[in-house]
Amino acid sequence: MAGSTYGTLFRITTWGESHGEGVGVVVDGCPAGLDLCGEDIQKYLDRRKPGQNQYTTKRSESDNIRILSGVFEGKTTGTPISLLVMNEDQHSKDYSHLSQIYRPGHADYGYDAKYGIRDYRGGGRSSGRETIGRVAAGAIAAKLLEKMGIRVQAYTASVGPVVCDPANFDEAYQKSSRLCMPDPEAELQAQEYLDECMQNGDSAGGTVICRVSGVPAGIGEPVFDKLDALLGQAIFSIGAVKGVEIGDGFAAAQATGSQNNDQCGTHTNHAGGILGGMSSGKTIVIRAAFKPTPSISQKQHALGKDGLVHDLAIKGRHDPLIAPRATVVVECMTAIVILDLLMRNMSARLETMLSVYGGFRD
Amino acid sequence: MAGSTYGTLFRITTWGESHGEGVGVVVDGCPAGLDLCGEDIQKYLDRRKPGQNQYTTKRSESDNIRILSGVFEGKTTGTPISLLVMNEDQHSKDYSHLSQIYRPGHADYGYDAKYGIRDYRGGGRSSGRETIGRVAAGAIAAKLLEKMGIRVQAYTASVGPVVCDPANFDEAYQKSSRLCMPDPEAELQAQEYLDECMQNGDSAGGTVICRVSGVPAGIGEPVFDKLDALLGQAIFSIGAVKGVEIGDGFAAAQATGSQNNDQCGTHTNHAGGILGGMSSGKTIVIRAAFKPTPSISQKQHALGKDGLVHDLAIKGRHDPLIAPRATVVVECMTAIVILDLLMRNMSARLETMLSVYGGFRD
Amino acid sequence: MAGSTYGTLFRITTWGESHGEGVGVVVDGCPAGLDLCGEDIQKYLDRRKPGQNQYTTKRSESDNIRILSGVFEGKTTGTPISLLVMNEDQHSKDYSHLSQIYRPGHADYGYDAKYGIRDYRGGGRSSGRETIGRVAAGAIAAKLLEKMGIRVQAYTASVGPVVCDPANFDEAYQKSSRLCMPDPEAELQAQEYLDECMQNGDSAGGTVICRVSGVPAGIGEPVFDKLDALLGQAIFSIGAVKGVEIGDGFAAAQATGSQNNDQCGTHTNHAGGILGGMSSGKTIVIRAAFKPTPSISQKQHALGKDGLVHDLAIKGRHDPLIAPRATVVVECMTAIVILDLLMRNMSARLETMLSVYGGFRD
Amino acid sequence: MAGSTYGTLFRITTWGESHGEGVGVVVDGCPAGLDLCGEDIQKYLDRRKPGQNQYTTKRSESDNIRILSGVFEGKTTGTPISLLVMNEDQHSKDYSHLSQIYRPGHADYGYDAKYGIRDYRGGGRSSGRETIGRVAAGAIAAKLLEKMGIRVQAYTASVGPVVCDPANFDEAYQKSSRLCMPDPEAELQAQEYLDECMQNGDSAGGTVICRVSGVPAGIGEPVFDKLDALLGQAIFSIGAVKGVEIGDGFAAAQATGSQNNDQCGTHTNHAGGILGGMSSGKTIVIRAAFKPTPSISQKQHALGKDGLVHDLAIKGRHDPLIAPRATVVVECMTAIVILDLLMRNMSARLETMLSVYGGFRD
Repeated sequence: MAGSTYGTLFRITTWGESHGEGVGVVVDGCPAGLDLCGEDIQKYLDRRKPGQNQYTTKRSESDNIRILSGVFEGKTTGTPISLLVMNEDQHSKDYSHLSQIYRPGHADYGYDAKYGIRDYRGGGRSSGRETIGRVAAGAIAAKLLEKMGIRVQAYTASVGPVVCDPANFDEAYQKSSRLCMPDPEAELQAQEYLDECMQNGDSAGGTVICRVSGVPAGIGEPVFDKLDALLGQAIFSIGAVKGVEIGDGFAAAQATGSQNNDQCGTHTNHAGGILGGMSSGKTIVIRAAFKPTPSISQKQHALGKDGLVHDLAIKGRHDPLIAPRATVVVECMTAIVILDLLMRNMSARLETMLSVYGGFRD
Repeated sequence: MAGSTYGTLFRITTWGESHGEGVGVVVDGCPAGLDLCGEDIQKYLDRRKPGQNQYTTKRSESDNIRILSGVFEGKTTGTPISLLVMNEDQHSKDYSHLSQIYRPGHADYGYDAKYGIRDYRGGGRSSGRETIGRVAAGAIAAKLLEKMGIRVQAYTASVGPVVCDPANFDEAYQKSSRLCMPDPEAELQAQEYLDECMQNGDSAGGTVICRVSGVPAGIGEPVFDKLDALLGQAIFSIGAVKGVEIGDGFAAAQATGSQNNDQCGTHTNHAGGILGGMSSGKTIVIRAAFKPTPSISQKQHALGKDGLVHDLAIKGRHDPLIAPRATVVVECMTAIVILDLLMRNMSARLETMLSVYGGFRD
Repeated sequence: MAGSTYGTLFRITTWGESHGEGVGVVVDGCPAGLDLCGEDIQKYLDRRKPGQNQYTTKRSESDNIRILSGVFEGKTTGTPISLLVMNEDQHSKDYSHLSQIYRPGHADYGYDAKYGIRDYRGGGRSSGRETIGRVAAGAIAAKLLEKMGIRVQAYTASVGPVVCDPANFDEAYQKSSRLCMPDPEAELQAQEYLDECMQNGDSAGGTVICRVSGVPAGIGEPVFDKLDALLGQAIFSIGAVKGVEIGDGFAAAQATGSQNNDQCGTHTNHAGGILGGMSSGKTIVIRAAFKPTPSISQKQHALGKDGLVHDLAIKGRHDPLIAPRATVVVECMTAIVILDLLMRNMSARLETMLSVYGGFRD
Repeated sequence: MAGSTYGTLFRITTWGESHGEGVGVVVDGCPAGLDLCGEDIQKYLDRRKPGQNQYTTKRSESDNIRILSGVFEGKTTGTPISLLVMNEDQHSKDYSHLSQIYRPGHADYGYDAKYGIRDYRGGGRSSGRETIGRVAAGAIAAKLLEKMGIRVQAYTASVGPVVCDPANFDEAYQKSSRLCMPDPEAELQAQEYLDECMQNGDSAGGTVICRVSGVPAGIGEPVFDKLDALLGQAIFSIGAVKGVEIGDGFAAAQATGSQNNDQCGTHTNHAGGILGGMSSGKTIVIRAAFKPTPSISQKQHALGKDGLVHDLAIKGRHDPLIAPRATVVVECMTAIVILDLLMRNMSARLETMLSVYGGFRD
């Protein structure tokens, strides 16, 4: 298994390379009876679409989704939903010089070491376009969660050294923000910082915070499939993520027990909504660190296939930072994890099974 | 699946509660032909054994491992290895007052919400004793990795606000350190900090760093089963972990691309040995944040099953901090992930398959 | 994964060799809230216990089950249930001559080819004792199914050429039958046939029929995890099974569509209760062919590790036929498959999810 | 998981309905470095293509395969291979009368019971077109197996009462045979039988035999993932299969041990190449029973959604028998199972791991 499938009951399989024919996903195990149309998915894809402003790659893709199966007369049927986006604006020739060189900060060397062959055009399978499948599937998961009163929302919490101030939060602003930041002041500073990075042929890192409200207590499986463990896998599986925190995260390691425990009657949420691997009923809070885009136009030293060091200034079209366009990816992976665990949780009690199957025989 | 199984080819299944008959693990898929005896496993278990000094719980358990299957004439046979540790020093009565109350910072409420029933004695399944199975299995994984020249080592990197200084590292010292710290000075300060916490009926958090050397490049599966994604799941699946970083982690989110890329010819390792979800050939570096032990003897407000708020001062025997005894658990989970991915990687290339199976038919 | 785990949500992991310390199973994902005691399991194990009459091996094992985890105050808690039977009556020396020889009809050669090492004592992992874990887990599954009105029952349908006649069926008789046959006349003839086989140092084959009533329609997942596909895997995974049929089985291949379709209003069940991989609501009927016990005391030609042909007369204690003791194994594997699919089926419809989770938020 | 994914390391995910946009498959885990072009797959698809002669449905589909990902410069890259066939010749209106009725012998009722919704056009997901994904994936598996000297071949062994005689086998003839039968005489008789069935508005059953040569000994995982168990699942997962045999199958249940054991030095293969769940090194022999096509134009009694019995004469375009077009499906599923187990087997021995990974560090 080359690891392109995720989930136990709500199971997604993504495929596609940056400069291949297209990218897509098969969603297997989607409950039957959900109203679903292309627009439900398109609106999520549009949030990650390239070419939207000066802080995203200039690659121009309409990223129109096609639903090829699993929906009949406007409703999901329980059979696999195949979703397809064709690639349009490939400039494959821009990448031919990369066939013999391993870009710093990229997976190029790993691919060659592993497979002995590599589609070097635009990052191949490790391109950001790989996330289209995740977002398309996640849009379905998010719609299902909404039916159960569960809402997943992510935003850019910091760009380089610039951090959003919770006091300035403006959810409406975030929707129009070029950087997906809910704090207008922070966004302005972030843009200045980014402009400087771009002038230097450099790139920036950032963090994303994702919040999930409405999850009932007890979701997540003790031991290996803890809610936080599966979120950890899901978020780390997004390219460029180098750190994940739940609730207070690393700050908790500096606190004492009396400071960190969320006592009854208080409104603290140090635990970020997860205790012992299960949801506690409070808002789930996840924080992810995205490294700066490794493709920079500054000259770098890169290893060649010939074993020698080469000078490399990366051309092609790249985002100067990853976090803003990744917010919707974080939301979608989170939605998929929580939906899958809700589905797995249905058989946790005999009592629930009897309530569901008792009806068949009276 | 209640999530007690982990791994694709090297697959472990743990079981057991703190105050049940015992705890154990079944290791399925262990390659045949490894020399294995109880002592190989016991030495790992002894590193997590309770009652070793004033900074660990006073529960006294010999934690003697029994190998019930899968080993014949001193070698693994390829069949499942069942490992068993009987519980000995349960003081179940100490916990009876907890049957009607949900301890802050614990999974108690989640268990009741999920299952409608809970073994409240000593944390039941969410006790630290659950890690015995992980460590026993991990000892086998680590021994297999050693045969391939791969070494996994973890240490306590900080206790509360006290951080180890890499300049003071003394690997030999760590072995005898009560807190698994390789920096003697930091350990002294940490002990002072802990003594103070314990006098206050409080507990402390800490971080663990784990380093893996010798992993060939290309290990890890692109997309969902990235090396860092599976490490993320594995480390977050250890109780009390609230944050995980690979390489520079959250610091990378504040760097620029030119700072963060590990250029060819330099000795930096910002990436922590993982790029695009695959090993790069450099040392793998993982950092985990452990929250402070939630069981504290200070009085807390706790929710009761009756829906009311109760005063609670937790009795029983608890570690004042989790990180030191967790170092071996982090090592073991890391070893399991890497071994499993090495096994999965064997079929990545047709060429390797032909080299293995070609021999059958000449 | 060496294939010792079975099931998606109700997941069992068996371990143990014939002449190792013991055999056992870990049942993960058992719904919480089921009354469960050792006796519930013991009564199933007693049905497969050796040494019961002249038609079973003389190995004398009490096969006492121990529940090591997952049950608290008489109820399942949702955590893994570890079940253990210690081995008692091993005569390992009886088998030492087999270390250098591959018995005809056995897996010996395959084990050596695969693993390069083999526990040759009593068949090692491929002994019939491996089924103890299946039966112990299946007893739990069967008890859960009973709560939902589902009943699984198997019997010996033929021994060599002797076939039970449905006209003579006596369910009460089967319980006391030495051969698990519900037809007293057929059993007498079967005993005569077996006596003759045993006098010749030979063994006999047989078939088992398993019937499941009360399964609601729609259980089973279209395509690869069809109900019949998973039953096929489960039944073929029992040692010595060489054929599996659902409903009319091979006879259906000789019928025409008009003969084979179960039309509405008729009482036929050619389909054996499964259509398109899902239960139809009718009784599920499975038939399994067991080959004759390959261990016979007649002299045979066997391949040696030295590459030469050796004469071999197998000593040790063996059943002259496998089918009767396998009836309970067939029942148990069937119960596990059906329970697992019932659990998986719970999230098939959004409507059911809303009925279960809607309650959390009002 | 709605069961549309199969395999552990070589993992396929199929999707698509008979009258949706198209059908397809994602093949994940295909080893890198295999030469692969559309023609490799097309030639397999052409063997199952409809409309080839009077004994197949008149639906006219070109079934042209498109490779959307995972192949670069003519070689597999190790990333998922997405394969797509668009639907062309749907006559959806032919099926509108089936929206309110459950066809005898079909999954219609099960779908409604399970999902509460059903794409009734042409059988929806349970159409024979679902096998296109299996065949496309299996073509790749078969090509990989060929590189290892393994050959998988299936043929129609019987049609209704007409059975091929091994004495008349003509492999070359089979290629041009309309019914995939290698015995010219039997084929003539079978055609007569079929002509009669069709005149009566009826359909016929049949059996398929599949033989695999060149599999090394030791392939297959003891216990649940036995080679025969996984073949059992794979073959039963093909629509209309009601029985599966390995080697002598049900006949073994009537033999004695001395008759059934394949002694050393003989050329018998009663075991069909599988012992104890592992390949023995001999040719693997599988036999599958296909029921007659349930869609017949004879008038039948069918249950309506209204709970009443309705007269039904099925229109639309249907094969009068399934076996011949299923031969390539049986081959493909068999190839997938064997390839996956070969891949899983690579880590069975430490020795093999060292031979593969030793090279990385010298």
